[in-house]
Amino acid sequence: MASAPQDSIFTRIIRGEIPCHRVFENDRLLAFLDIRPLADGHTIVVPKRQVEFLEDLPPEDAAEIGRQLGRIARRVVQATGAEGYNILQNNGKAAGQEIPHVHFHIIPRRRGDGLGYRWQARPADPQALGELARRINACDA
Amino acid sequence: MASAPQDSIFTRIIRGEIPCHRVFENDRLLAFLDIRPLADGHTIVVPKRQVEFLEDLPPEDAAEIGRQLGRIARRVVQATGAEGYNILQNNGKAAGQEIPHVHFHIIPRRRGDGLGYRWQARPADPQALGELARRINACDA
Repeated sequence: MASAPQDSIFTRIIRGEIPCHRVFENDRLLAFLDIRPLADGHTIVVPKRQVEFLEDLPPEDAAEIGRQLGRIARRVVQATGAEGYNILQNNGKAAGQEIPHVHFHIIPRRRGDGLGYRWQARPADPQALGELARRINACDA
Repeated sequence: MASAPQDSIFTRIIRGEIPCHRVFENDRLLAFLDIRPLADGHTIVVPKRQVEFLEDLPPEDAAEIGRQLGRIARRVVQATGAEGYNILQNNGKAAGQEIPHVHFHIIPRRRGDGLGYRWQARPADPQALGELARRINACDA
């Protein structure tokens, strides 16, 4: 029998039990500055509803995140004078997720800042890609 | 005087001028397998409307991306047997954006795969964070 999920640190921030440097809030979302930033203006965007993985987030919350991410990022970029930004969101420990509550990172970027994804792309076999697409398309939504 | 924006390679894929291994499509979005994947099942999700940066995407398109990202990722993870996934989206050359058409990466992850964000977080000065939050909150949405 599963126990009730523990309140995440984000839920405690949303409730006001832990302070934050808020940059956006509405009825579904809260955005605040990361206190251990990768770059000046590193912002965390969280749904107020505590759900561990993006795929389990109710569509209304997921849509609102989609709607607001770029709008929040525009203000972060304007205030910091950054040249660009990454949106990053991690699902599962293997993907680097540390807090079991969906959150998106907005990471302001500047040329030569040394940040970014470790990118080791290699051409894929077209036949294998076709076969994989068929397997994905056969999965339930 | 600005010239009309050139069709991106994604717009050409959306029009069917260039083939792809499609894994999702509706009236606003297309998702297909990256032909130079970082990992098995690496998927690109693009709005059909060609816009360079996330903050300029119309809210309806941005909301639909929010709604579908997790649903597409669930099928990719199911088909590949991955242990987790990252969502990554780059805005601007300084952020690693190579194609001037908004696109989200779904990157399936496994323990020890060597992928991930270069993470060099450092504690920030609380007073500086407070000042930065005030500057961001003073920016127009």
